[in-house]
Amino acid sequence: MTQPEIKRLLVNFKTLEEFQNFKEVGVQELSMKEELQENIIENDSESPFYGIYYGDRLVARMCLYKIDAKFDFYFEPPQNYLELWKLEVLEPYRGRGFGEALVNYAKSFNLPVKTNARQRSDYFWEKMGFENVTYNPERDRGENPYVWYPEGVEPQEQSPVQSDMTPPE
Amino acid sequence: MTQPEIKRLLVNFKTLEEFQNFKEVGVQELSMKEELQENIIENDSESPFYGIYYGDRLVARMCLYKIDAKFDFYFEPPQNYLELWKLEVLEPYRGRGFGEALVNYAKSFNLPVKTNARQRSDYFWEKMGFENVTYNPERDRGENPYVWYPEGVEPQEQSPVQSDMTPPE
Repeated sequence: MTQPEIKRLLVNFKTLEEFQNFKEVGVQELSMKEELQENIIENDSESPFYGIYYGDRLVARMCLYKIDAKFDFYFEPPQNYLELWKLEVLEPYRGRGFGEALVNYAKSFNLPVKTNARQRSDYFWEKMGFENVTYNPERDRGENPYVWYPEGVEPQEQSPVQSDMTPPE
Repeated sequence: MTQPEIKRLLVNFKTLEEFQNFKEVGVQELSMKEELQENIIENDSESPFYGIYYGDRLVARMCLYKIDAKFDFYFEPPQNYLELWKLEVLEPYRGRGFGEALVNYAKSFNLPVKTNARQRSDYFWEKMGFENVTYNPERDRGENPYVWYPEGVEPQEQSPVQSDMTPPE
């Protein structure tokens, strides 16, 4: 099987239309749409989405964002890392390695990668070389973080959890 | 209508059983279960969940966690704040003000409150005095944050977004 080609998606109305085939339309897409409509960003600017086309149909996508080191509570030393989310392959195109290809692309930047794994997707992330981190409610607030460490990068140690929440009098 | 009583939920098997009636069983509950089974926390310790009982049935709940100031990128001055999530009222008990009562309880600590609002819940949060923040993908990573500012607390200014992500050669 040839490697599928990963494309950085452009901000335009065609992309937004393609997004309607995917499940999770959230604030990232809405913000893109608004900025496009209000000419805050240009048509065809580069978006934080990457995808795979099958013919001219977008069949897989992910959002990948470089997070500044000041927001980094996962990696040691603290550094810029990539947050990966909205990984999705359209139903009829699953089982062809498109999800794997996108995740491998994210890893190819050689920055640490973090994602919030859906329930029952642990097997997929472990297969991709990601590790579950020890859940820290203060940092993770209900998320299920899986991370990938490039060579030389370690987990960031977290101070013990405070649970001193005293209800008001 | 009398004000419903808000209880801090105890960590025990009864609470975990009640949780099965709610939609979103996530890592917070799983971590509670594990810690309970492995005796890392004691039976009947206080959990970060608060709820409302109707008779002896848990019918509404939320998770409320005090987040340390070092993780605060929402409020000025940076400070400890409360993250509210997993707000849910069981279907037959909706429309009785249980959700409002829980959110008001969160506000009564007089700390800033932040939540990641579900799509189409904007009206509820605005009614509760929360405000939408300007979406910053680096900080918000796909979330839809709504926040409540106590008196004297302001939005934290964010540095302009970097979108300098260059694919590897």
